Order: sequence, then structure tokens, then C-alpha cells
Amino acid sequence: MSLKITNAKRIEGLDSNVWIEFTKLAADPSVVNLGQGLPDISPPIYVKEELSKIAAIDSLNQYTRGFGHPSLVKALSCLYEKFYQNPINPNKEILVTIGAYGSLFNAIQGLIDEGDEVIIIVPFYDCYEPMVRMAGATPVFIPLRSKPVDGKKWSSSDWTLDPQELASKFNSKTKAIILNTPHNPIGKVYTKEELQVIADLCIKYDTLCISDEVYEWLVYTGNKHLKIATFPGMWERTITIGSAGKTFSVTGWKLGWSIGPNHLIKHLQTVQQNTIYTCATPLQEALAQAFWIDIKRMDDPECYFNSLPKELEVKRDRMIHLFESLGLKPIVPDGGYFIIADVSLLDADLSDMKDSNEPYDYKFVKWMTKNKKLSAIPVSAFCNAETKLQFEKFVRFCFIKKDSTLDAAEEIIKAWTTQKC
Amino acid sequence: MSLKITNAKRIEGLDSNVWIEFTKLAADPSVVNLGQGLPDISPPIYVKEELSKIAAIDSLNQYTRGFGHPSLVKALSCLYEKFYQNPINPNKEILVTIGAYGSLFNAIQGLIDEGDEVIIIVPFYDCYEPMVRMAGATPVFIPLRSKPVDGKKWSSSDWTLDPQELASKFNSKTKAIILNTPHNPIGKVYTKEELQVIADLCIKYDTLCISDEVYEWLVYTGNKHLKIATFPGMWERTITIGSAGKTFSVTGWKLGWSIGPNHLIKHLQTVQQNTIYTCATPLQEALAQAFWIDIKRMDDPECYFNSLPKELEVKRDRMIHLFESLGLKPIVPDGGYFIIADVSLLDADLSDMKDSNEPYDYKFVKWMTKNKKLSAIPVSAFCNAETKLQFEKFVRFCFIKKDSTLDAAEEIIKAWTTQKC
Ligand SMILES: Cc1ncc(COP(=O)(O)O)c(C=O)c1O
Ligand SMILES: Cc1ncc(COP(=O)(O)O)c(C=O)c1O
Repeated sequence: MSLKITNAKRIEGLDSNVWIEFTKLAADPSVVNLGQGLPDISPPIYVKEELSKIAAIDSLNQYTRGFGHPSLVKALSCLYEKFYQNPINPNKEILVTIGAYGSLFNAIQGLIDEGDEVIIIVPFYDCYEPMVRMAGATPVFIPLRSKPVDGKKWSSSDWTLDPQELASKFNSKTKAIILNTPHNPIGKVYTKEELQVIADLCIKYDTLCISDEVYEWLVYTGNKHLKIATFPGMWERTITIGSAGKTFSVTGWKLGWSIGPNHLIKHLQTVQQNTIYTCATPLQEALAQAFWIDIKRMDDPECYFNSLPKELEVKRDRMIHLFESLGLKPIVPDGGYFIIADVSLLDADLSDMKDSNEPYDYKFVKWMTKNKKLSAIPVSAFCNAETKLQFEKFVRFCFIKKDSTLDAAEEIIKAWTTQKC
Repeated sequence: MSLKITNAKRIEGLDSNVWIEFTKLAADPSVVNLGQGLPDISPPIYVKEELSKIAAIDSLNQYTRGFGHPSLVKALSCLYEKFYQNPINPNKEILVTIGAYGSLFNAIQGLIDEGDEVIIIVPFYDCYEPMVRMAGATPVFIPLRSKPVDGKKWSSSDWTLDPQELASKFNSKTKAIILNTPHNPIGKVYTKEELQVIADLCIKYDTLCISDEVYEWLVYTGNKHLKIATFPGMWERTITIGSAGKTFSVTGWKLGWSIGPNHLIKHLQTVQQNTIYTCATPLQEALAQAFWIDIKRMDDPECYFNSLPKELEVKRDRMIHLFESLGLKPIVPDGGYFIIADVSLLDADLSDMKDSNEPYDYKFVKWMTKNKKLSAIPVSAFCNAETKLQFEKFVRFCFIKKDSTLDAAEEIIKAWTTQKC
């Protein structure tokens, strides 16, 4: 191979990806897939119908405005204005992107320079680290830690940041912190007090906050999703990110959005116009129409923003009950659609798993997928190299699944643990 | 504004964009828009119908394989194998992207480093320059030049590269050349001999070739589209880029693809997994289905790859005739769906156009849009700062338009030139 035909340095070492590896593994149709966060429940009928109708309209199959289809940014501004103190300018303060993923990329490329530091809370949605590295910046990690929970249910709210430790990560080089609430994979919904600690540090150190809120509607009884951008002094330094895939259970649409002040959003727009230019028109128009349907009935239990979390809470409780009945210690999520559980308690015999350098959870999931036909995602995939050991006993199960899928998973888990006894 | 809340250096100065500016201008519904390359003819009915059907299928609304939906990469490999000497591995040698735009970005970010040089042929599709700059590389420009054409029709084939001048642009720092055939905006279809000159230099200097072939099906009588990747020694160093938007007249779908050897494509894949992860599933499946329909009838005049250029050739001839009848000297394109013409011959009175620092064609198009309700795109938008003057008399008109749109344009142009006399 010639020397010149090599990759650019910015992507050196960024080629491994947990989704690609474990999705391939779970592709076997006999495997019950609780891995990737991929709903197998039906998306709302009106969402699909809007796309069907719009596909027939010629002009909606052509290029639209690069920073967001006009009807979509209008719907988004109308929706989110309900949660912010001020009106949101649809053209200047919103950018429609290729999923939340695209928003994260645009924010990081547009705002983070070589040599900057970016604080990432562990475990983290896996793309944060390589995206920060691709920008030439240094990720600075801080783990969520759990207090002892003897005797009572283990909850995602038991996982917290130590305020002192967090403060110690900020310095004059800190350009941003990436926040994720509700949190994937733990399911933590940050409280007002917790967010205030972060906000205070952002302001003290003049730091940006990239707030990934893709599970914003998926919070369970007793919890409330709060937007850090609405805290005093935070709007001007926060990019808030949402996802159509998570909002309407259509992950395959890959539409997302960033909301923030124009002095930040304009830089994300610059990245967009030099990377993809614009997002698909028919999907954007269908999404706008779907939003209008639910915006008009936000207080109604039928509104998907209300009905989906209700539907999911039942599934969450069922899976928690199942895991508990097996003596596993699942962490009850307050939001999102994942449960993590300590699988080391299952005492699986992994001795025939080859790659012994892999963390325990990688081996466990590969073993479970192969031998038990059940797939999940290892939590150490959401960790940097140094914290993998801290989380390698945990595996993440996705519960936005039809009852029949959860039945099949239950059957597998029960049969396996009975065998063991 | 705080010092820290600023853009990353990599996007400094990359915020202006001709599409955003001129699309806004042409948004007035009373304007006849021959600006952006946006078909107002109907896309094939089966393309729209496939999307309508697929929208109803639950699983096709969820995430698919990150590097390309399995049925789509299969269709693409089957189609393109007809043009290459060797089979194309759908998983390793193809990457599906957010339009051709996304392919260009992935190729440049994945392969071009800070300090590299990238040769760009002027005029060029406008994103090439900022994309190269965003990668920290230096664009090296070389213009197409036209021979005198007294007495005969001016053709896009009269615009050529000077082989000596081209050779002088290559050196040990040259990492890539970006080729575009059929060419936007000139409509040039590179000949075998012309491509051989480029291939020889790429091999001599061990240089990559990024070959943007989005108009590959749109070549007119007497011309043939050739793929530089099929030239000896070129497959291993070429990324060939295509576009669903241009292939099926659905620019709003924003799907494209890169084809090349795995040792290059894998780096584009790495960029993709750290920028957007995956493209929209329903659009990819619909595109795959549309491809199968036309792959099965490639020798049939009904096949869209054959019927669209036939349909467009009539429109091209009509517009050429119109421009000629006005005494303008249009350049007859051999491919693509644009005509450029020297508008200085129209002697428009631009004295009341404010921004006097703008090139002539910018002022002309703004004036024409405002006063004549006809829009187009200034060709200097496709030039670097140093060559703008060389092309500022030219304006680009898009002719993938319904006859009624072309009628309206004709009426405007005729009325205006009659007034003048
Ligand atoms: C926390 C978090 N952020 C971002 C994303 C990506 O969302 P999208 O599919 O909209 O790009 C996901 C998807 O799982 C996620 O869990
Ligand atoms: C030469 C050229 N390359 C790339 C593109 C972008 O294509 P897409 O819409 O598929 O991103 C265009 C669109 O006009 C083009 O003309």
C-alpha cells in the first residue's frame, strides 16, 4: 500500500463501533434482540400515514431549506416555546440535523477546537468520545457513582456525580460539558439540584453545555424532565438536542434538532452546510405534520408524548420484576427505555469465550447471544478505557419492545436460570 | 460575548453559501426559478409509490445497517458491476451517505489531512473548497479554459484543462484531485483522453481521485460517460460518488453513495460512524426497490437512466435555441442539466444594485430576480476568489423543469429583450 493512501489523522483509532459489532451478532433472526435501542412496537399510525401521503407530492421530494424545512422548524419552535421563557426563532435558533447524532457532531465540530477539553459523564452514549477526539479535543471523564442501596430497590437516581469531583474537572481549557438526561444507559433523570450544580460550574468557568435530551418525553411516575437551558444564565451557553427517532419511535428516520441561541446555532449551521447541506424533505414534512397532531393535544392522555411513557412504564416494571425474581439487581430507570443489570450474579460459564482481553460484559453478551439466543449491549461500551472495569459487570437491555418479544426474552431467561439450579 | 463561546477554527470563514443566499431570493412564488438544480418535473411514479408503501412497514421505519441498508448496497453493487471489471463487494466497497454531499464530506474528512494539497478544477461544485478547507488542507485551483469558437456553436467540450498546467499543480504534497464529470456548471463530459491525462498524473504522484459523477446518466447524443475508476491503476485510488437525488430526480431524498476499494471506503465508514451513524431506512429501501425496477430494464428506452436524458435533451435544445435567438452565447452542455451563458451581452443596467464589491454575475442575478422575476445562479459562486473575475459574465440556468416553467422563462426573456430594442 502506498504511503499516501492512508486515512487522515483525525480518525486514527476511531474505527471500532459497538453498534456495528453487536448488531451484526444479533442479525440472526432466531435471536431475541434487546440490544440496540430500536423499537419493535409500531410507531404511531399517523406518523407512518403522513409519510405515505407526502411521498406522493412532487415538490416534497425535492431539496428544502438547508437548516430545516420551514414547516418543521415552525412546529419545533411552537412545541419548545412551551418549555422556555422566551420565544424561539425557528430560523435562527433551531437547526434540523441527521438525527441527534448529527446535532452532536455539528455542535462538537462547530464549537470545539483542538486542544480544548470536554467533560463527559461516564457511562456515556458511545459516540461522544470519538466525536470529541475527531475534533482534536481531549475528553475529560467523570463517572456517575452509586451509593450503597442495601435492602431497597436500586434506582437510577442512586447514581450521582460527586460535586467536588465534578468541580475538579473544570478548568480554563474546559470548552464544554456533554450532559445526557434522561440518561442512556442508566436511565437517570437529573434533578433540579443536580442540574444547578452543573449550571453553576458552566457559568463559573464560562463553559458550553451540550445537552442531549433525546429521551425527554420518556420519564416515569414521580420524575420530571428539566431542561438545563432554562436555568438562569444557561440559555446563552447551551445547545439542547432532540430526536425524532426517539420522540415518535421511528429511529430509521434519522432526524434530530439542536436548539440554542443564534450565536451558537449559527456555527452548527456552518458545519451542516459543509457536511450534508440539508436533511430529507419528505421525512421533515411528515415529522412536522406528526408534531402538529400532538402539539394540539398535549394535555390529552392520547398525545404520544404522554401515552408512550405510560406504555413503557408497564414494560419497565415487568422487566424489573423478571430480573429481580432471578436474584439479579437491576437498576430501575427513571427515564429512557433501557435497564441495566449486574449480570455477574448469573454466574455464566464464559470459559470458552475466546478473546480474553475483552471486558466481562462483552464476553457475556457474546456468550448469551450465541448460547441463549438473547442479545443485549455491554455497558462498558459506554465507558472510556479507564472506567471499563468499573462497569463491566453491567449489561443493558432495551425494553421498547412488543409484549411478544418481552415474553420470548422472559422465557429464555427463566429457562436458563432454572437449568442452572 | 465571552471569549470561549466562539466557533471552532476549522469553520472560520466558511459560513457563506450561495444556495442559502439565492434560494431565499427565489422563494418569492412569483419568481420563475431556474436557479438551484431542483427538478420541478415529476419524479418517476414508482419511486414515489415505493416510499408510500414502505412508510407503512414498521420495521422499515427503524435503524438499519450504518454503512448502507442491505438491500440498497446490494442493488448498487449489482448496478455498478456492469461498469467495472470486477465484482463490487456491497458491504466493503460501498458506503451509503447523506447525498453525494455526504460522500464528498466523508471522503475528504477520512482521507485528507492538515497540510495536504487537493487539486480542484474551476469552476467547481461550490462545496469542494470549504470542505477541503475544513479538513485543514490547501485547495490548489486550475481553471477549465475555452478555445476560441468563432462561427461555430460554443460547446462544453471546448472547455479543457491544459495538460502542462495540470501537471504543474501536482507535487509530493498533493493528496487528491476532485474530478466532476459530467460537470456542474459547464456540462462538460470528460473524454477518454482527458481522463487518461488525469489518471497518469494521479498514478505518477500517487494521488487519490475523488470522482463526483452525480450526473452520470445525464449525457446527451454523441457523448459517453466514462468512469476514471475503470482506468488501469485507478480503482485502488479512486472514490466514485453518485446521488439518488440526481439519478431519480428526488433531490429531497438526500441519499448518495461512495464506491471504491475497501482500503479507502473503510475510512469513509469511520467518518460516517462518528458523524451521522446511518441514513434513513425508508428512503434507502424505497431507493433499492426503484433501482431494481430500472436495473432489470437497462436496455429498454423506458428505463429512467435512458428516458430522462432523452427528455432533458429536448429541453436543453430548446433553451439553447432561445438564448441564441437573443444573441447570447450559451455553452451547449454535453451532460448534466445546466446551461451557462454570457449574460454581459444583455447589457442590463445594474447601476442601482447596491453592493458594488460583488462580482458582475451576482449583481446580475439579483437584479434579474428582482426586476424580471427570473432566477438563476451566478457562475462565480463556483470559483475561488482568484478566478471569480474570469467567470463573472456567466450565469447558470437549470433546465430540468416542466415545459410550463420553461415557457414562463421564455416569455420573460423575450419580453425583456424586446423592450430593450
Ligand atoms: C443518548 C442518545 N443520544 C443520541 C442518540 C442518537 O439519536 P438519533 O438516532 O436521533 O441520531 C441516541 C440513540 O440511541 C441516544 O441514546
Ligand atoms: C456536482 C455535484 N455534486 C454533488 C451534488 C450534491 O448532491 P446531493 O444532493 O446528492 O448531495 C450536486 C448537487 O447539485 C452536484 O451538482
